[in-house]
Amino acid sequence: MKLLIKNTTIVTVNDQDQVLEHADLAVSGKNIVGVGKAPLDFIPDRVIDGKGKLVMPGLINAHTHLSMTLMRNYADDLPFSDWLFKKIKPLEDHLLAEDVRFGAKLGIAEMIRGGTTCFHDMYFHMDEVASEVESSGIRACLTSALFDVSGNGEALLAQGCRLHKDWNGRSEGRITVQLGPHSPYLCSPEYLREILIEGRRLNCGIHIHVSETADELSESRRLHGCTPVQHLLNLELFSLPTLAAHAVHLEEEDFKLLSENGVSVSHNPGSNLKLANGFAPVEKMLKHSINVALGTDGAASNNNLNLFEEIHLAGLIHKAVNNSATALPAKTVIRMATINGAKALKLDQEVGSLETGKKADLIMLDIRQPHLVPCHDPLALLVYSAQASDVTTVMVDGNILMEDRQLQTLELSSILEQAAHQSIDLIERSQS
Amino acid sequence: MKLLIKNTTIVTVNDQDQVLEHADLAVSGKNIVGVGKAPLDFIPDRVIDGKGKLVMPGLINAHTHLSMTLMRNYADDLPFSDWLFKKIKPLEDHLLAEDVRFGAKLGIAEMIRGGTTCFHDMYFHMDEVASEVESSGIRACLTSALFDVSGNGEALLAQGCRLHKDWNGRSEGRITVQLGPHSPYLCSPEYLREILIEGRRLNCGIHIHVSETADELSESRRLHGCTPVQHLLNLELFSLPTLAAHAVHLEEEDFKLLSENGVSVSHNPGSNLKLANGFAPVEKMLKHSINVALGTDGAASNNNLNLFEEIHLAGLIHKAVNNSATALPAKTVIRMATINGAKALKLDQEVGSLETGKKADLIMLDIRQPHLVPCHDPLALLVYSAQASDVTTVMVDGNILMEDRQLQTLELSSILEQAAHQSIDLIERSQS
Repeated sequence: MKLLIKNTTIVTVNDQDQVLEHADLAVSGKNIVGVGKAPLDFIPDRVIDGKGKLVMPGLINAHTHLSMTLMRNYADDLPFSDWLFKKIKPLEDHLLAEDVRFGAKLGIAEMIRGGTTCFHDMYFHMDEVASEVESSGIRACLTSALFDVSGNGEALLAQGCRLHKDWNGRSEGRITVQLGPHSPYLCSPEYLREILIEGRRLNCGIHIHVSETADELSESRRLHGCTPVQHLLNLELFSLPTLAAHAVHLEEEDFKLLSENGVSVSHNPGSNLKLANGFAPVEKMLKHSINVALGTDGAASNNNLNLFEEIHLAGLIHKAVNNSATALPAKTVIRMATINGAKALKLDQEVGSLETGKKADLIMLDIRQPHLVPCHDPLALLVYSAQASDVTTVMVDGNILMEDRQLQTLELSSILEQAAHQSIDLIERSQS
Repeated sequence: MKLLIKNTTIVTVNDQDQVLEHADLAVSGKNIVGVGKAPLDFIPDRVIDGKGKLVMPGLINAHTHLSMTLMRNYADDLPFSDWLFKKIKPLEDHLLAEDVRFGAKLGIAEMIRGGTTCFHDMYFHMDEVASEVESSGIRACLTSALFDVSGNGEALLAQGCRLHKDWNGRSEGRITVQLGPHSPYLCSPEYLREILIEGRRLNCGIHIHVSETADELSESRRLHGCTPVQHLLNLELFSLPTLAAHAVHLEEEDFKLLSENGVSVSHNPGSNLKLANGFAPVEKMLKHSINVALGTDGAASNNNLNLFEEIHLAGLIHKAVNNSATALPAKTVIRMATINGAKALKLDQEVGSLETGKKADLIMLDIRQPHLVPCHDPLALLVYSAQASDVTTVMVDGNILMEDRQLQTLELSSILEQAAHQSIDLIERSQS
């Protein structure tokens, strides 16, 4: 299929952050073959009128627990420990594969409707998630949550490695698999060493929660005599490509260590604020040239999977925190939600920007709407004015997953019904 | 017209914060005549199926400068003084009545589409805004911006009083008019005394910016030897019903003074964050029983008029600022966006909650959407998951202003075209 988007505004997120007006974009099969103009000999099978639209790279959600969509609006306005131990953990203790399946369907539907084309997931029963990624057409990097505090660390690690064997590179490369040690506080040093050995064997990356709460930092000091970042460095975990989720509570030395070791960070402002974990020092991370991506975390602490909201939050809160209206300008935040996410997932050679040769993972927004007029600055418009609901069209690997806000690969009404039913079932199961 | 909404979820925002499920709501003419059940003898002319919908009071935007929509995405990521003096003021120096008219049309269209049924405005050429309020069917409290630093304070005050004479109570009560001294720093003490005399004569309220920036606080100390709040109290301004916009930089004593004098505050988190003015101490205001409403400020510092975004921001940021996940729970934030706004505008006898006898100012949201399923807690859903685009139906004074997301009183495509054109015209005029 050869597709041409005509006469549109293109936010490329290339190295020059170019924004092209009255421009065309050509897609052939899975790939972008022209940005600005189509190749001379390009004869499209289909032409989409891009007037009044804006085209940008698909958003990349660098940290989520997809199937927690079933726990949306179930545990709110609670202290972190009550939220986790009294409400969320009792559900997770009773989690079945079918919960994960219906939660994943719902989450993928939500993400596509909000312009997300790729996500980095960590949860349980991940074969179910992989299977839904395969059939829905979205792109994902998947990890099975690993921890050894409950005594079944070996079995979980074996599962995580098996997930890699079964799914890494599947769906014509749309699915990649990494290892997902939950956190330094749920994984013993010995266990993290085992994960490191497996990670080296599989030649894969690591997705881990790091320094999310103030308690985690002080406990790490008490137990290991150093910060979580330093602890993981000492264990040589950063010798594998690592994505650290949260990184809210960092000490001076940590910035240098994350930067030197090429560790990416997923900044998850909605979750950090809602759980009162604080403001991640993103402005300082960026000054240290740390690659900072954006994530939603799970829908139980957000309570949605809307990256446009995270873009908005990231664009606003760091200005107030740093007492500087020039902190995290629009251009920077858009990079965080796109190319930085691709880097964090080690997919930046394939996606994250609109450039010839890359995969056609892109979204179109309808910018002829009252909250988007006038449009003097497309980047500011995306960060400060736009909404997830402005996304009309979503494409992954050259396939259209949503058009005119209609999902093309998923049947929305049955997904909503099944998820609502499954959520009640999960809660009742946990209480019986 | 007698209208019945059947079998729906009703967030009443009454004194008990009742949420009713499978409930009906009856409207007769301008008024709500039944919440939960219709009156026994009620025979509706029209029935709306409320299944899968949520009904709540229309949102009240307690502080905006509506026609600044024309300056949307025109001046971003700039320090406050550059933003104001290099970009915004040059436009305002060239502002014509037609700019205000087209900006108001655009802003009203945006607000209705986002579930706002009433707003509190302060700007120039306010007859234009009043006229657009009248024809669109929305509700508003209007003030003409008053200041005497430029030497034409008397003329502005005469205009502001004339606006009151011409428009207060018009459109069957949908329009009220107050006086709008811009701020303690743009109004001399003598001028504020004159405004107070006129306000007493007209028996109207006051809308004023107070303690928005750290500079304002330190300048007030230098010039008047006290905080802006204390300065206004000394001038007896609070003897009139007063709405203080922003109130970001308060000192210990100010909380008590605002509370004792019944001053309402419009909290405008999006603007405060974007201009790096800081985090208003809302949790502490609420502890002092200050009535805190929500506002967007103008679209030049936001960059939209989306109260669902302000609800979301208010629900999140104060948890992190106060290091407490229980700060500003969902229930509180919904009150801020509805009944507290009505109190701030002295309209709480008429609107702000869904109760028998009140005006039918209400909105319906479609909650059968992937980001709103499951719905274990309608209040949390509204604050943490919902979007402005979920609003399907908007009613003011019993009249439907939007249905199935289609505006009923405004012609959207011409408004968008005119506003875009007028915005470019304004910029060119300011540069010539």
